[in-house]
Amino acid sequence: MSIVDLARSRRSVRQFRPDPVPATAIRHIIAAGRLAPSGANRQPWRFVVVDDPTIKRTIREECEAAERRFHSHAPRELVEWMNARGITAAKPFLVDAPYLICVFYDAHEPYPIHSTWLAVGFMLLQITEEGLGTVTYTPAGVDLNRILAVPLQFKPTVILPIGYPAVDLGAPARRPVAEIAFRNRFGDPT
Amino acid sequence: MSIVDLARSRRSVRQFRPDPVPATAIRHIIAAGRLAPSGANRQPWRFVVVDDPTIKRTIREECEAAERRFHSHAPRELVEWMNARGITAAKPFLVDAPYLICVFYDAHEPYPIHSTWLAVGFMLLQITEEGLGTVTYTPAGVDLNRILAVPLQFKPTVILPIGYPAVDLGAPARRPVAEIAFRNRFGDPT
Repeated sequence: MSIVDLARSRRSVRQFRPDPVPATAIRHIIAAGRLAPSGANRQPWRFVVVDDPTIKRTIREECEAAERRFHSHAPRELVEWMNARGITAAKPFLVDAPYLICVFYDAHEPYPIHSTWLAVGFMLLQITEEGLGTVTYTPAGVDLNRILAVPLQFKPTVILPIGYPAVDLGAPARRPVAEIAFRNRFGDPT
Repeated sequence: MSIVDLARSRRSVRQFRPDPVPATAIRHIIAAGRLAPSGANRQPWRFVVVDDPTIKRTIREECEAAERRFHSHAPRELVEWMNARGITAAKPFLVDAPYLICVFYDAHEPYPIHSTWLAVGFMLLQITEEGLGTVTYTPAGVDLNRILAVPLQFKPTVILPIGYPAVDLGAPARRPVAEIAFRNRFGDPT
């Protein structure tokens, strides 16, 4: 499948079937991220693949506590957007998904956030190619370093729950091309 | 081609052939980025596709001036890494590549940098699929908003020069998987 077709078939998945995910799929997903370019080729990303149920439960509990704090202080517009989609402080996907890939970046390297999110982009497409689903879940105020014994130079940036989608979702709306792409001058059509 | 194979065949390209790039390829590259997920689906990315030679020349001149300032203050390790690869303040690819895609993000949206670099990840793979090359060139201290008449709420983050590679490059070295991926606990093998 071409990249555009693969990107078009991708969905942000928050409900997962309990079916096991082959370990080879996880290896392919890591392999895709590993091949991304990075500032000075320093490859600042680190991935902790979590399938231990006790650790997943701890991550869920701490993320939900942080979410409850966040929801009580988030910008009104964002809370409305989340409510309209049934997105609350409850994050059952953190235990329902067979795997969590917790993504960290090395804050000591050049362009670590840009590079790591490029790698996540590659991983999202590999996840789609495997017939799996994920959502880029970005917890704030959760001490993933402690939970996963990760040295403090590495900063957590996203958790990718990995599993088979439990529901068929419609395609997300996108801005028209004329609103996001221009030629030579902002506002001029491509 | 699978994502992993496509990612493996990708190179960071800084030397381009003058051969014209089909406009359809540029449309596909924009289409891939447009389909990336984003914080609250706000799609904070904006792309200005530049093929006007005068504008490309202006961008090159201002980037090279900024590069000369940067090279005189950059961390020694990074300058050594760049020198070993022949990366200097000269950026001829900014005029040699038939197209520049200048990427901005809307600073008023949630997670704009994360989202936009995810989109760039999708675009890099589409560029590879088209048989084209690029490099994620991140100029600092260049007023791309003025040059391209982009409103100030949009911040420049990367320029992607797009063209056919002029040279065959070897595969970049990558850290072994055991150095970047762990299972349940940092340091434990996957």
